[in-house]
Amino acid sequence: MPTLILVRHGQSDWNLQNRFTGWVDVDLSPVGVEEARTAGRALSEEGVRVDRAFTSVLKRAIRTLWIVLDEMDQMWVPVERSWRLNERHYGALQGLDKAETAAHHGAEQVKIWRRSYATPPPALDAEDSTHPRFERRYGHLSQADLPSAESLKMTLERVLPYWHDTVAPVLSQGETVMIAAHGNSLRALVKYLDGISEEDILELNIPTGLPLIYDLEADLTVKSSRYLADEETVKAAADAVANQAGR
Amino acid sequence: MPTLILVRHGQSDWNLQNRFTGWVDVDLSPVGVEEARTAGRALSEEGVRVDRAFTSVLKRAIRTLWIVLDEMDQMWVPVERSWRLNERHYGALQGLDKAETAAHHGAEQVKIWRRSYATPPPALDAEDSTHPRFERRYGHLSQADLPSAESLKMTLERVLPYWHDTVAPVLSQGETVMIAAHGNSLRALVKYLDGISEEDILELNIPTGLPLIYDLEADLTVKSSRYLADEETVKAAADAVANQAGR
Repeated sequence: MPTLILVRHGQSDWNLQNRFTGWVDVDLSPVGVEEARTAGRALSEEGVRVDRAFTSVLKRAIRTLWIVLDEMDQMWVPVERSWRLNERHYGALQGLDKAETAAHHGAEQVKIWRRSYATPPPALDAEDSTHPRFERRYGHLSQADLPSAESLKMTLERVLPYWHDTVAPVLSQGETVMIAAHGNSLRALVKYLDGISEEDILELNIPTGLPLIYDLEADLTVKSSRYLADEETVKAAADAVANQAGR
Repeated sequence: MPTLILVRHGQSDWNLQNRFTGWVDVDLSPVGVEEARTAGRALSEEGVRVDRAFTSVLKRAIRTLWIVLDEMDQMWVPVERSWRLNERHYGALQGLDKAETAAHHGAEQVKIWRRSYATPPPALDAEDSTHPRFERRYGHLSQADLPSAESLKMTLERVLPYWHDTVAPVLSQGETVMIAAHGNSLRALVKYLDGISEEDILELNIPTGLPLIYDLEADLTVKSSRYLADEETVKAAADAVANQAGR
């Protein structure tokens, strides 16, 4: 039966610095590398056999996948990268220190940008040199597809076509699929799979580095899901990310 | 214009042990990791921008590619793995110590297996637990495609369809393609690209860890090729692999 494994990348260098990251291609910190290793070892001990893997075009997710596949001794598994699995684009806030942003715009406003379902943060100027339209990895995309800032809603709207067109057909063949991605692209998927409301998804925090395993029916509805860890570890991990400023 | 970059993986754990490797999924040694880093740094300094990358389903080539893309800060580049880029299958000799094999079968016979164009080594028994038909990564292949032993000729015959069907169409769009693979799958490609005879290809040794860059015409004939290193380094590297027992 189809099996889906979600892995959220662990700590990055900018989590440490408490900066808004979004599409900035920040690497894993040594702690993040260790989180990926732990996830890979847990999957290896569980005897999981991956058929296909998907990730974003951002190195903190790609490296997480590499480390996990390496620990599982399944480096040969086909991997596809897509911008549609990228983190939510954080617009003009990308690169800013979160505390400074709160001091400047007010804590309430920042909370809205971070925690509302449909309100995007201020857009990144199209002439800004860090706009994705200047990056080679996005060179094949139409201007209409390229975001300048995204809400969680907008993130979900560009993740789901990839799910339907690319991931779901593989699962429908009964395969085991792994997706290594980001807090918000994975929240979008979980919202869809578990039918979570727009309010409730804002309270849902996917722990980093803990594989989330979905056993699916043939029609890809959810039969059951579980984190590959004991309950205490899952709770501690969810608490740790719950009030983290920098998703 | 189309550009093709070939990278042969460096030292593996079994090179160190002087054993026949072939399709056995042996990892890079620390020296092999360093060779890949050096190749990646050279390509990075050269300012090379890769559009697509291809590798085998064996981890010593995959890890080489990962390290090179990491050093180039181009981890986002799409990668496709294929068994058709695997090392030559060394049949029943896989896993054997080369010196012992020579003592048992005679140095002349081993030289023929290693150095003739069309004579494969003794076949791996189809019931041997290490036969590729028992490996999940080859589960999608027909029995007819799965080798039990290969000559260089047979290696070339399964590499070229991949070149024509998958790699050449990408190059024809004017893209820059990187292939990280093995001594014999790369020799097969070089024989084809440079029109080398069956005799001469046996004397050609592609150095490990030195990127070989082909500038191609629009019709994919070779305009020029060069190793990304000074002449002395290239000569020293070629000499080092020339008499190596264990390709």
